[in-house]
Amino acid sequence: MKIRVGQGYDVHQLQEGADFWLGGIKIPHTHGAVGHSDADVLIHTICDALLGAANMRDIGYHFSDKDPQYKGIDSKILLKDVIKLLKDANYEIGNIDAVVCLQAPKIGQYIPEMQQCLANVMNISVDDVSVKATTTERLGFVGRKEGVAAMATVLISKK
Amino acid sequence: MKIRVGQGYDVHQLQEGADFWLGGIKIPHTHGAVGHSDADVLIHTICDALLGAANMRDIGYHFSDKDPQYKGIDSKILLKDVIKLLKDANYEIGNIDAVVCLQAPKIGQYIPEMQQCLANVMNISVDDVSVKATTTERLGFVGRKEGVAAMATVLISKK
Amino acid sequence: MKIRVGQGYDVHQLQEGADFWLGGIKIPHTHGAVGHSDADVLIHTICDALLGAANMRDIGYHFSDKDPQYKGIDSKILLKDVIKLLKDANYEIGNIDAVVCLQAPKIGQYIPEMQQCLANVMNISVDDVSVKATTTERLGFVGRKEGVAAMATVLISKK
Ligand SMILES: [Zn+2]
Ligand SMILES: [Zn+2]
Ligand SMILES: [Zn+2]
Repeated sequence: MKIRVGQGYDVHQLQEGADFWLGGIKIPHTHGAVGHSDADVLIHTICDALLGAANMRDIGYHFSDKDPQYKGIDSKILLKDVIKLLKDANYEIGNIDAVVCLQAPKIGQYIPEMQQCLANVMNISVDDVSVKATTTERLGFVGRKEGVAAMATVLISKK
Repeated sequence: MKIRVGQGYDVHQLQEGADFWLGGIKIPHTHGAVGHSDADVLIHTICDALLGAANMRDIGYHFSDKDPQYKGIDSKILLKDVIKLLKDANYEIGNIDAVVCLQAPKIGQYIPEMQQCLANVMNISVDDVSVKATTTERLGFVGRKEGVAAMATVLISKK
Repeated sequence: MKIRVGQGYDVHQLQEGADFWLGGIKIPHTHGAVGHSDADVLIHTICDALLGAANMRDIGYHFSDKDPQYKGIDSKILLKDVIKLLKDANYEIGNIDAVVCLQAPKIGQYIPEMQQCLANVMNISVDDVSVKATTTERLGFVGRKEGVAAMATVLISKK
């Protein structure tokens, strides 16, 4: 069995009145993330980590932010496509660990629902997808509430 | 044997006159990190990476920064608790690699002592815990000396 | 076989008129990265991730930015030295996954050439070194085009 690791990093701006999609679910908040797709920073970083582990380029390569077909798209569809790419190459997900860097709101209470949603989309056990949250103590663009960032590390294997 | 990966990211503000705990030791410096606990950013990111690898939520979930019992607490105690959680779930640490992002002071000379301290707290070999350091070339909140950040990647296994 | 993981993070300032070395190749652009060496942020973060995985300190420890012998040095030479350190300790590279955080220019078109260059320097298969790219959506020092950052995750093993 060949084991590989991957990592992801993604950022989106926050804007008043925008929907806030995170980990496949909608977070009730005054501000939301904006971008060409639904701006789900957590799903995007997981996509990138999986693609990187499999050496299949990155999310911008597969789903261009200039392509109108991805305008406002539900990122769960992108994640499903990534999972299919990995499956077609005989890769299996070992585990995923991610962190969302966000000053507000507190998202700890939504994490179990995100994990369940992500596990369903990827068709893996909820035990194999971990989501964490941290503020940046009011520092930097996350701390100033200008944006949200997320990082992920993944392990995949090929039989 | 099931192998899993995890990652962590943590940030603390720097303040003149505060103690600077890092990797379990006190760094002599004009400024130190501040937070609800002793603000040891390196230990916190290692805790988060270990919890994430084991899919056991994050440091904020286990040790709330609203809880008075963790006010000013030595983060080595938190790390010991995390190690116990992993051990109880039959996880064993493979290796840990971390980086501290800090503009000043230079901490290279303290790294061996941090590694030894961390290894002792976790009851692992010093060969299995690596600590690196980098500045951010005077850019961002780390570069402006407003804060310190740390990231870690870990590998754990279950028999 | 003992498997280990490592991670890296590096930052360089961007300056008008400077050469822009990235992943071992020169990117045509109005601005380039500056530093003591050729400021190749992608190679540096890979060096750090490999050294960290092997618990051999970091790039600043081995190649001091105060040492005149590294002034303007081609970072591919540093990477070759790191590979030799790992080989001497009987480590073998499993895979490497990295991301470059850069607001401009778009570097997607150069990634295959970077991968090939990095694979050649490390004497590994191009399948085992992945490079990704992301902007930070105009946020932070990367978004303001003040600097470029890179992160990497690696897996190594010892027979
Ligand atoms: Zn995104
Ligand atoms: Zn902390
Ligand atoms: Zn560098």
